[in-house]
Formats: sequence, C-alpha cells, structure tokens
Amino acid sequence: MRLRPFFSGGGLDRADHLRTDPAAIGRLCADSGALELVWENGAPAIDAMGRLCWQPVSGSPPLLLGLNDHHPRLCALPEDNGPIDARTHIQLLTLLAAEDSPTFAAALSLAQWHGRHRFCSNCGQSTEPNRCGWSRACTGCGAEHYPRVDPVVIMIAEHDGRLLLGRQPSYPPGRFSALAGFVEPGESLEAAVARELQEEAGIAVGEVRYLTSQPWPFPSSLMVGAWASAQSDSLTIDTNELDDARWFSRAEVVQALSGDPDAPFLPPPAAAIARTLLEAWVDGLM
Amino acid sequence: MRLRPFFSGGGLDRADHLRTDPAAIGRLCADSGALELVWENGAPAIDAMGRLCWQPVSGSPPLLLGLNDHHPRLCALPEDNGPIDARTHIQLLTLLAAEDSPTFAAALSLAQWHGRHRFCSNCGQSTEPNRCGWSRACTGCGAEHYPRVDPVVIMIAEHDGRLLLGRQPSYPPGRFSALAGFVEPGESLEAAVARELQEEAGIAVGEVRYLTSQPWPFPSSLMVGAWASAQSDSLTIDTNELDDARWFSRAEVVQALSGDPDAPFLPPPAAAIARTLLEAWVDGLM
Ligand SMILES: [Zn+2]
Ligand SMILES: [Zn+2]
Repeated sequence: MRLRPFFSGGGLDRADHLRTDPAAIGRLCADSGALELVWENGAPAIDAMGRLCWQPVSGSPPLLLGLNDHHPRLCALPEDNGPIDARTHIQLLTLLAAEDSPTFAAALSLAQWHGRHRFCSNCGQSTEPNRCGWSRACTGCGAEHYPRVDPVVIMIAEHDGRLLLGRQPSYPPGRFSALAGFVEPGESLEAAVARELQEEAGIAVGEVRYLTSQPWPFPSSLMVGAWASAQSDSLTIDTNELDDARWFSRAEVVQALSGDPDAPFLPPPAAAIARTLLEAWVDGLM
Repeated sequence: MRLRPFFSGGGLDRADHLRTDPAAIGRLCADSGALELVWENGAPAIDAMGRLCWQPVSGSPPLLLGLNDHHPRLCALPEDNGPIDARTHIQLLTLLAAEDSPTFAAALSLAQWHGRHRFCSNCGQSTEPNRCGWSRACTGCGAEHYPRVDPVVIMIAEHDGRLLLGRQPSYPPGRFSALAGFVEPGESLEAAVARELQEEAGIAVGEVRYLTSQPWPFPSSLMVGAWASAQSDSLTIDTNELDDARWFSRAEVVQALSGDPDAPFLPPPAAAIARTLLEAWVDGLM
C-alpha cells in the first residue's frame, strides 16, 4: 500500500548542507540558472496549468527552497504574511499541480512562519533570518528559532463496518469528514487519536493504525492520518467542536466519493488527506 | 502488533473542556483532592519507586495537567526552566515508572515551553499563561501561542537482511542507534524519512512503513518511528551529523539487545524508541 495525499511528494532537493555555509546565499543568487518564486496575494503564484511561477532572481532573496537540477530555487518573504483567506485557499488547491505541491507547501509555511516570528519568544528582541531562511537568530539573546511543524491527528473510526465522520461548523452544507485535532506535548500519535475521539465523540478506542501523512500549509500542520477501531457506536458529541457526527456504511461512503448528488453527505475535497483516508477504507487498505 | 515505547501511554484525563472555562483553575485549586506536582532541579521529582511526587496545592498553580479519578493534578512553572543536563536526563529515564512517564513528559515539555515563550514572537511584548497553561496570550497584539510539538522521524533502513545504524558524536563509546531528524515544513513523514537517509547516509529509499511513536520531552519532540527499505548498501556518511554508520545482521542486533559484552555494538537504552524499533525488527514486526 502506498497512499499519495496531495502535498506529500518529495519536492526539491533541500540541500541541507548549503544552509550552514555563510557564503552560500550570495553564490546561489549569482548562479545563472537561479530562479525566484513569484508571490501573489500572500501565496505562491500559480499559472493556468497549475504550475508555480518563477522569475529571474532580483536582489538577494533570503530563503533557499532547494535545488532543481543543481540550480537554486530561491524565495523572498512577501510583505503581507497574514493568513490567506479561505476563498483563495480553496481556489489554489483546485488549481495547483500535484508535482509542485510540496514546494508550494514549504514556501507558504516558511513565509508565514517568518512573518509571525520577527521577535524572539525568549527575550522579546528582534530576530533575523538565518541558515538560508530555515531558522531565525535573535539579535538580543542569540537564541536560534526553527520553523514550527504542528502535528495533527486525523482519523476515521470504524465500528461494525461503519465509519464515523463529523461536521465542523465551518464546512459547506452537507460536508462530513474525518475528525481531527492537534497532538499535544507528552502525547504519542496513538494517544492523541484516542483522546480526540473520546473528547469530540465520546468514543473509546481499541486498535489504532497509521495510514499516511501530509503537510498542510495553512499555516504549518503535519496531518497524520489514522484508522481506529471504536469500542461502541454510541456517540456523545462535543458541540463546541462539531455540528454533528454520524456513522456511514461502506455503500454510503462509496456513493459520496462517486459524486452522486443524492449521496447522504458531501465528501472532503481531493486535496484533503481525509479524502485519501476514505478512499483507502473503501479499497480495504486498512 | 502494538508497540509500547516509553512515554507513550495515555496518562491523565486532559479534561480539555475545562481549559476554556475562566473560573476553572480557581475551582480546581480549591478541590480538596487536588494535588500539585513537585519539581526538583528543573524536572518533575521522582521517588525511590520511580513514581512522580505530588503535594497539596499551595497558591494557584497555573497549569492543569489533567484529572486523576476526577481530581485535578496541577503544576507550577519552575523558576529554572533551562534545559536539564544530560546526566540528570539519563538518571531520570532509568528511574521513572512507565505508568507516570506520559505525565512526566507533558509537564516537562510544557514547563520548558513556558520558560522559553515569555515574549510574543509576533510583536515582542510579554505573554501570559492562558487556557489553564495550555497556551500563552500576548499582552500587546493579543496573539495566542500554543505549545510546540516538534515531529522527528527516526528510522531503521534495511537492505538484504541487514539494518543500518549510526553513531552520533554525543553517544557513549560503542553505541549505535537509528538515524533521525526533524520533519521540515512542507514534508510528509515519508518524505522526511527519505530525505534524512539520503542526507546522512547517501541511501535512496523505496518503501517506508510507520511503526510507532513516542513523545520525547527534551524539550518537546514527537518521535515517529519507521522502517525503510534501502535501495543499496553503499554508504556516503555525512560526517557533520554522524561519526559512523554501519550495516548489522539480525544475529548482531539480537546479540546487542541481549546485553552481551562481546556484541558488535551497544544498543540504545530502554526508554528510547530506537530500542523499540530494534526489538520490533528482531521480532519480525515490520
Ligand atoms: Zn532572544
Ligand atoms: Zn504580540
């Protein structure tokens, strides 16, 4: 089994060894094959074919995304680093080519992280990009800060051949998807899956199986997809988190994935790992 | 298969719903069954049986670790939040009871996070504990900051029945263990496994299989253990990261795990997920 969620491929050669070379950025910017990512409305620009847009390097972009065929791909930090709006987000995911999605994810997560980390959490002084943009160094206490990657568990719970899916208040009408939540300090992935299903749906969990993972750059999650066996189908829904949660049969999930307008729910979109989890379940890949 | 690395159990009921109740901490501190964690030298104190030490609540500890049999377990933020030294760390892991290890991990990670996040990374102003200690709120821009959990991939690569293990410069003499590295923004777990094996050992990876996970509170990692199939056994070692890397046969790994002083290497200690990975491999649990 090899599941391939959107955003999850290999992307550029990240060329980690260049990041600690202080002269590297200058040399890389002068490379005649170097290219710089184009930004548009706070996100990487995408052309009509869904490919990322690149331009000749101007100035000294502080961020080395990686190498492509040994030539550097660089990135400036856009002026507007605020969160991009939901409409932009959905449009981008519909258009973006899968092969460019890991680079899109890395650039967007890193740029947003730089925008929210201009100051040192340890002493309050200002910070500056370091390691070709893969960390920031404090001008006061000297602490080095690394980009955040926030692990999230997202899981389908099964009981007696049916699958538990829920509705968050922000979903479009009819949509049901996998339950999810951030992993907390002191938790394994398996403990986080059990806690979230207990908290959100009142479900006690037996076995937990990892399925696949996906970076999700809004702003910087690592989605970890899992299957869990539920010990009963009696639900206690946390209405602060979910509008609703229901059990669906395999036939109902198949109908929803087929796009049938009469299906009992609207499934998650193609770019979401939740969609990959539903497809894997229907295909018996647990 | 259910692997059980140290630190990876369920721990306390985290009682997430209480965290957003502004009056909760006051009520919980007044509970006659409430207990407060004892700190010693910057880490949770442990008694001769390896159990965490608790005392009656004094004042208003800002951190709710969770509920035990419906009674609150609270935690102050220790004065000295610096990283604990390696000697303390090793002693603690040898003594600590497995059943208390998830609570130890949560308390230590959270306390260290609070100590390093007294200022807002977005605006540089001071921050204050919020949500019963599970976030900090900025007194300037109002941003809310959540504890970090940093995912790390740790993997055993296999080729032709032999396993790749490496030596970091900080290891005691003779020790070999699984290779590891932080997951970066824009990476899936599988992509991070492939990148790290390529960077550190020059190994191209085929299939990657998830094995198990473990929180590691020094200071706040989430260790994600995996097996990977290596496409060749020819090594190019990154000597900035590793002293050495070698292939070991199943018989050699069995000998090392048995504690034989003539074994070709010293295996990772019992609390490390790397040890769990080696045991799983020897038992054929891939
Ligand atoms: Zn600082
Ligand atoms: Zn602020």
